[in-house]
Amino acid sequence: MSVKITVPATSANLGIGYDCLGMAVSLYSEFTFERADELQISGCSEKYRNENNLVYRSFELALAHWGEEPFPIKLHIDAAIPVSRGLGSSSTCTVAGIMGAAALTGRIVGRAEAVSIATEMEGHPDNVAPAIMGSLVCSFTPQGELPNCIRYNVNPNLRFVTVIPPYEVKTEEARKIVPQEVPLSTAVWQMGRISGLTRGLESGDVRLIAAACDDKIQEPYRRELIPDYDEVREVCLNGGAATLWISGSGSTLMAVTDDGLVAESLRARLQSMHPDFQVHVLECDTQGVRIQLA
Amino acid sequence: MSVKITVPATSANLGIGYDCLGMAVSLYSEFTFERADELQISGCSEKYRNENNLVYRSFELALAHWGEEPFPIKLHIDAAIPVSRGLGSSSTCTVAGIMGAAALTGRIVGRAEAVSIATEMEGHPDNVAPAIMGSLVCSFTPQGELPNCIRYNVNPNLRFVTVIPPYEVKTEEARKIVPQEVPLSTAVWQMGRISGLTRGLESGDVRLIAAACDDKIQEPYRRELIPDYDEVREVCLNGGAATLWISGSGSTLMAVTDDGLVAESLRARLQSMHPDFQVHVLECDTQGVRIQLA
Repeated sequence: MSVKITVPATSANLGIGYDCLGMAVSLYSEFTFERADELQISGCSEKYRNENNLVYRSFELALAHWGEEPFPIKLHIDAAIPVSRGLGSSSTCTVAGIMGAAALTGRIVGRAEAVSIATEMEGHPDNVAPAIMGSLVCSFTPQGELPNCIRYNVNPNLRFVTVIPPYEVKTEEARKIVPQEVPLSTAVWQMGRISGLTRGLESGDVRLIAAACDDKIQEPYRRELIPDYDEVREVCLNGGAATLWISGSGSTLMAVTDDGLVAESLRARLQSMHPDFQVHVLECDTQGVRIQLA
Repeated sequence: MSVKITVPATSANLGIGYDCLGMAVSLYSEFTFERADELQISGCSEKYRNENNLVYRSFELALAHWGEEPFPIKLHIDAAIPVSRGLGSSSTCTVAGIMGAAALTGRIVGRAEAVSIATEMEGHPDNVAPAIMGSLVCSFTPQGELPNCIRYNVNPNLRFVTVIPPYEVKTEEARKIVPQEVPLSTAVWQMGRISGLTRGLESGDVRLIAAACDDKIQEPYRRELIPDYDEVREVCLNGGAATLWISGSGSTLMAVTDDGLVAESLRARLQSMHPDFQVHVLECDTQGVRIQLA
């Protein structure tokens, strides 16, 4: 028996929601697991074809979590989600490892348990929660407890023009550049806009999305780390997009529109300007990780 | 023709939502307006029976906003909402003046216009928005623009045990005591919990309400200004309430439960402990300001 685990890309922060919002989008990596006599990994570069592979490590940790002995597998990776671009690729590995381990051992693992194990591995739920649950998730974690994940439906008219430059932004550098103290007025500014952005994405009200998506915590600093930020933002906003945010800590930029023609035209325009970028028109993924037996 | 304007009390902040959340509750003040030959005000203390009366000033400002000349009225006030206790009593005056002016001049004023005029008068929408729209409102105001008000339904099972001490907390003092700089981690803490509290109040999930309602911005400081805070909190939480927050800047405290018997028992207990307090069991008001012709 082999099992294919499909995990969506995720965009964390969404501008205003630093370290609490994340959304699953329709770009997927696939991971095929089957029991084998020895560990075999294919579909990734040579250096990841061993026990340090993130997917395999997560697989082993999940087994250990359930008190099960590790066993060798044949793992094939078909990853459409680019690495280190702010689209949650490492979270897809974590989630795939957990769900692969569950499937191969016949264990029933629901969303809450999967999120709890994945959060323990990742240290925060921002990407793994939407990767598992699908849709838009806002999370918060009481001291010493499991995360609370609030899931929002996202209006199906919305399109996310996703611009992936060929360069990375180091998460560590992106974290360092964000001021560790903020004025009280900034905290209040962000709080009200969390409500505005989640409601705007639910209802598809692009005017509300644009009004709410005006971050003071991280975007004013992190935009400096992405050389093409200003140009891409200008093209998208002049072209009719409601807003644009940095996905995770970048370098991916994501523009929002409720007009599919605007989205496709922006993709064509940006792709012709930057042939070395990946430009996708994505939707919100509503399902999250899925499991197929073969 | 006379017109009666009924305005609900409002609880701002709700613990976690400093300067952005507000909820209308089922405690009402009534204001009856009719045209007269000279200004006559009744139902309030002598010193407010003149042109400086808050309701009449709002009435005049609303007329001026529409380019109408002021005219004398007979105004009767029947205010069940106590003054300066954090239940939005001054906002009820503002809202009543606007809606009284609209009704007596036959003007159709919708929620958006009423909120916009009232916010201009009050300086912020925190109390006037829920007083006008009813229910739970989270608001944010883009630079130089009108407020965006996100309205949430509140689960009808929820009861709000409202404890009103006989003393005031000065809003100015309550503002001064709140630190004007916060750690980034505190801003993120609050942001995720806005999502948790609004969803908890919508769904009636008291476990989620309790988890989310853990403020780091104002309650740790403002509780010091309310001598009975600790005792009332302990009685409410030991008695089965999910959480307790300071209403506005106090002195009113509001405990939340989804169990009507717990609510009534808490009221009895607290009222017998403090015969000089007002203790009410309130529900969320879903309608907001209402207008009746007589």
